[in-house]
Amino acid sequence: MQPLTESHKPSIADIEGAYTTIKSEIHRTPILTCRGINSILNANIFFKCENFQKVGAFKYRGATNAVLNLPLSEAKFGVATHSSGNHAAALALAAAKRGIPAYIVMPDNAPSIKKKAVAGYGATITFCPPTQQAREETLGQIQKETGAAFIHPYNNHNVICGQGTTTLELFEDVSDLDIVIAPVGGGGLLSGTATYAKEKNPSVKVYGAEPANADDAYRSLRDGTIYPSVNPKTIADGLLTSLCPLTYSIISAKCDGILTVPEDTIANAMRMVWERMKIIIEPSSAVPIAAIMANPSLFREQRVGVIISGGNVDLDNLPW
Amino acid sequence: MQPLTESHKPSIADIEGAYTTIKSEIHRTPILTCRGINSILNANIFFKCENFQKVGAFKYRGATNAVLNLPLSEAKFGVATHSSGNHAAALALAAAKRGIPAYIVMPDNAPSIKKKAVAGYGATITFCPPTQQAREETLGQIQKETGAAFIHPYNNHNVICGQGTTTLELFEDVSDLDIVIAPVGGGGLLSGTATYAKEKNPSVKVYGAEPANADDAYRSLRDGTIYPSVNPKTIADGLLTSLCPLTYSIISAKCDGILTVPEDTIANAMRMVWERMKIIIEPSSAVPIAAIMANPSLFREQRVGVIISGGNVDLDNLPW
Repeated sequence: MQPLTESHKPSIADIEGAYTTIKSEIHRTPILTCRGINSILNANIFFKCENFQKVGAFKYRGATNAVLNLPLSEAKFGVATHSSGNHAAALALAAAKRGIPAYIVMPDNAPSIKKKAVAGYGATITFCPPTQQAREETLGQIQKETGAAFIHPYNNHNVICGQGTTTLELFEDVSDLDIVIAPVGGGGLLSGTATYAKEKNPSVKVYGAEPANADDAYRSLRDGTIYPSVNPKTIADGLLTSLCPLTYSIISAKCDGILTVPEDTIANAMRMVWERMKIIIEPSSAVPIAAIMANPSLFREQRVGVIISGGNVDLDNLPW
Repeated sequence: MQPLTESHKPSIADIEGAYTTIKSEIHRTPILTCRGINSILNANIFFKCENFQKVGAFKYRGATNAVLNLPLSEAKFGVATHSSGNHAAALALAAAKRGIPAYIVMPDNAPSIKKKAVAGYGATITFCPPTQQAREETLGQIQKETGAAFIHPYNNHNVICGQGTTTLELFEDVSDLDIVIAPVGGGGLLSGTATYAKEKNPSVKVYGAEPANADDAYRSLRDGTIYPSVNPKTIADGLLTSLCPLTYSIISAKCDGILTVPEDTIANAMRMVWERMKIIIEPSSAVPIAAIMANPSLFREQRVGVIISGGNVDLDNLPW
């Protein structure tokens, strides 16, 4: 994997370029509002609903941009990644749409629903023991055998630019936002969000939201060093990863802070959205809403864009 | 209660008039489509999403139209109904918006979430034993004491006209529909749907969908007589009621048939929509989708409008 440097930091122009590239491939997801929730949170919330994106998550934007930016000479060997989550499904579908192979390394304990989704998009799945080392070794072996290009879920310029297009659409649809808030795991979404929002309007505040039980990004920014995410215990299964140098450098330069939320507030916020808005959001998407609830003075009467990152939930294991 | 006659049958002009009356009070709900479901069902489905309507159900349209059509001399005494479901919440909110009292008779075994919703809209709730006789007697007593106008959930011209505005919006947004399908309980929604669709375009087919375990409408139309709904056992809790003479006469004149579905297919259809569309629909709304699955030859490659009637679900008691 090539080391990523300052030159890989995206600009707003890069995100606009990504949008031109992927626009015809993605859903333009709606902005929803809910008077009941505005009243509870005492703010004007604009939900950017990437739960309605293809594969049910914003990840399809970044994966598509990465796949479409590969030159044919590389693309013909296919793409590869290790992931048990939405990035795996997103990369599998993006590759299928370009007609190139996708090789996905998944831990053998991944939920069967995720295995099925990835297989359903025609990817070749290789299972490995559920350790970081096994994942990386298995992926290395596959790359050696196939020549496939590794598309990292967030340590990748084109992926971050793709994720940033979510905020581009949010700004096109909603004027005069005071704040934008997105969940933070590895930081790809938050990096794209912060880059677009701050370059478009420097007076907009940008926050990341993170479970207190997986607060590596919060601690990393506080202490000026990247902490790994060690054995995090949270229902927000999309936020288990840690920042990489690229996302750390973007987020530390552009974000106004990381807000952490107690674990029990995540399911409450998720349920409030299900009950009042009649839409299905995954636990990771509820974390920014829980953060608004936990910080009323920060959000009072503000116009807040909330990135709803995805809607992939195991309906047999709901957190209530 | 006054007997309703042919003169109470709505026309398309009545529905257009209702729309003028209620338009500023209701949400214009979206039409959603889903390629995955189209592929499974081998049809082009246009979901008219009344789960996003106020109070989470189409019932708000009919209740609002009934409340706004009351002359001030009657309205000042308030409105009353007996219901444990969406009509109760809808009438409570519609009355609150007009600033008149609402008196709701609920069976004392109604789910606490429904009691809370109705109370939250400021209605006066009177509990009674869970029998039809107790409901009607309690309601009669309240009407005597208060002078409130009884707004029946479907045996009411203005209610049916309000429900018909769902299909008016569907036809405004989707051209060239071949079929429209809606769930049928008491028949208010289906009466409004069939009236609008058939008068707008007589070549459009209109079907009702009903659980096989609560197939009183199917049997009533087959045999030419109204059967009561006796102790129905279905998860489609919005479809437990039986037709009244007014809805029977509209539906028998205008509908192309009632399709019944096996009980176990309702939860499957509901879950398919939750998983693939990331929207929350209630069991009653899944019945038309189950009917499409059960009758592939009827719907093959057709453009089908499906009325998603509501999204009010007890998240602690899901049917899987």
